[in-house]
Amino acid sequence: MKFNEALDLLQVYEAGKPIELVVREYCLKAHEVIKLASNENPYGTAQKVRDCMLHALTHVHFYPDDSMYELKKSLAEHFHVVPEEIIIGAGSDQVIDLAIRAKCKKNDSILMAGITFAMYEIYGRAIGANIVRTQNEQHNLDEFKALYKKHNPKVIFICSPNNPLGEALEVNDIVQFLQEIDSEVLVVIDGAYQEYAAFKDRKMKIVPTEIIKQFPNILYLGTFSKVYGLGGMRIGYGIAQKEIIKYLYKLRPPFNVTTLSLVAANQALKEQDFIEYSLKNCFEQMGCYEDFCQERGIEYIPSYANFITMKLGKVNSTTLSEWLLSQGVIVRNLASYNINAIRITIGTQEHNKRLLLLLKEFYETY
Amino acid sequence: MKFNEALDLLQVYEAGKPIELVVREYCLKAHEVIKLASNENPYGTAQKVRDCMLHALTHVHFYPDDSMYELKKSLAEHFHVVPEEIIIGAGSDQVIDLAIRAKCKKNDSILMAGITFAMYEIYGRAIGANIVRTQNEQHNLDEFKALYKKHNPKVIFICSPNNPLGEALEVNDIVQFLQEIDSEVLVVIDGAYQEYAAFKDRKMKIVPTEIIKQFPNILYLGTFSKVYGLGGMRIGYGIAQKEIIKYLYKLRPPFNVTTLSLVAANQALKEQDFIEYSLKNCFEQMGCYEDFCQERGIEYIPSYANFITMKLGKVNSTTLSEWLLSQGVIVRNLASYNINAIRITIGTQEHNKRLLLLLKEFYETY
Repeated sequence: MKFNEALDLLQVYEAGKPIELVVREYCLKAHEVIKLASNENPYGTAQKVRDCMLHALTHVHFYPDDSMYELKKSLAEHFHVVPEEIIIGAGSDQVIDLAIRAKCKKNDSILMAGITFAMYEIYGRAIGANIVRTQNEQHNLDEFKALYKKHNPKVIFICSPNNPLGEALEVNDIVQFLQEIDSEVLVVIDGAYQEYAAFKDRKMKIVPTEIIKQFPNILYLGTFSKVYGLGGMRIGYGIAQKEIIKYLYKLRPPFNVTTLSLVAANQALKEQDFIEYSLKNCFEQMGCYEDFCQERGIEYIPSYANFITMKLGKVNSTTLSEWLLSQGVIVRNLASYNINAIRITIGTQEHNKRLLLLLKEFYETY
Repeated sequence: MKFNEALDLLQVYEAGKPIELVVREYCLKAHEVIKLASNENPYGTAQKVRDCMLHALTHVHFYPDDSMYELKKSLAEHFHVVPEEIIIGAGSDQVIDLAIRAKCKKNDSILMAGITFAMYEIYGRAIGANIVRTQNEQHNLDEFKALYKKHNPKVIFICSPNNPLGEALEVNDIVQFLQEIDSEVLVVIDGAYQEYAAFKDRKMKIVPTEIIKQFPNILYLGTFSKVYGLGGMRIGYGIAQKEIIKYLYKLRPPFNVTTLSLVAANQALKEQDFIEYSLKNCFEQMGCYEDFCQERGIEYIPSYANFITMKLGKVNSTTLSEWLLSQGVIVRNLASYNINAIRITIGTQEHNKRLLLLLKEFYETY
């Protein structure tokens, strides 16, 4: 059977390996495997979030409240916007897809950093868009400007902090950049790791309400998958002026998030002590990896997110990550992003100690 | 900001009202409201399903196993197919969307019954497809054949039992129809309510493994939202030959169902006693509505699903359904489908008694 030709060229997203798979492939026991590959919160989610989900188990046979009234109200309060300026997706991923499909047609251009979140390209290619990347691996706004003028993109993606590299942009620089972009161009600012950046350095903190008030063409994305500890529940959001949200809504599938995800996210937003705890521990623990890299002369990218990316030089990232897998530790091999690097999610103290011991062993033995 | 023009014409799916909304709008208490509008299983889901979800609450911070290994294995066993013949979606809804986007381009035709599940048209219009419907409200395969020859559709939707009307097709008739369809045309057989039809009359029972072996162009859809009692968890599936599944996978977003949905569906499939109980009660209770209609001379469509659709004649469906809402009972007004009818989900005995009393009151008073 023939399908649309664009599909033949599509690459599929390579997800971080789940624990279940490693258990099967390497004949390990589940408790022996630690996953530091997908930037989940190693402290889980707040206890009260799990409690709320537990109470909602009696309601799973009912379709979700598709107006998402409660969660929108909470998000609106949290971000000082109105509910009509919010769209909730099955992960911020889904909002990326909706944005591209609402704004782009075949052969339209989409501009993004040299190395950035893989789904921008994958969703773009699915509709036959032309992907334009900076030569710089990390975000370089001067190069963004030059490519914007040259390629006239319909959508620009800025990922700050950038996944999978970890660098972040100063808000002042983003604002200056936005002033030079035509208001017909949709600029998506992906803030999936913004809580981390804001904690580490206020200069990197993007305030959605300020940026969407100033610019009518901004779509800000956030997620509950990272510091909020709900990666398994697939829930994120977009914040933009009403006009943009209205159009994204036209493509949103009904009931796109589950009943339990709505309940969980709503409670998670209220658990700011847990968030603070998670952020503080993340950056304390990140120091251990930085120290290790400095001692060994391994290049790493200073990170504003909950992971650290090491550029490996002579060591091959596939060799290292497969050896770690055989030892029961899952990290993210960035070979598929065309760099010889691994991305390590900052885990609990116990996780990090174990991984650092393994890294030492690898570097001393191989 | 300008978006793709196709969006301007898009209608948005009108979901059954959730209890939360009715509680807010009519100032009722949640326990006073009953929802018989979205064809959920009134008995909830099996206890063991909730137990499994409870155990998995400790894992919600991890992204789901995107290979969906366990659930695919269980579905493969249940349906006597192989895992490569299965795709799992955020509801079978998502598989509908993937199928349309994989197979259709702008101005391609999609053929469906006069009145059938609204999302076929909505997803079709989202990509600019041309929607062809039979004049017959219910599925009439002779008219399908004639329109197939005339319009050369890329995709045909057969919904058996048909939502929101309730009629079902005999499998022999479907097979005969399929023999006349070119194998380049994708025929989607939506079996969201198949468990009900198979229970009521074996002649209506579609066996996916048989039909996909015989025809390379069939995509069979099933869901956990109806008799399995997981409408809030957004999980369904498609079964087809590997080639079709492979292409749908190219458009599937990663992590498209939640960790808890996977766990729940996997257990739900094992709880066949609960399913039998739900099916048996459904048709016993449906008898009460049929009796009511016959006594009052109200036209209804004999139903092979867990709902009954009444054609109201002189009574206006909007008037009736809004009056019922004010009394705390949510039914589905089919005015948006352009028929003067209401669709009632068969509830528990208690629910049905309450609704039948209200219907009597309405017919005697208004």
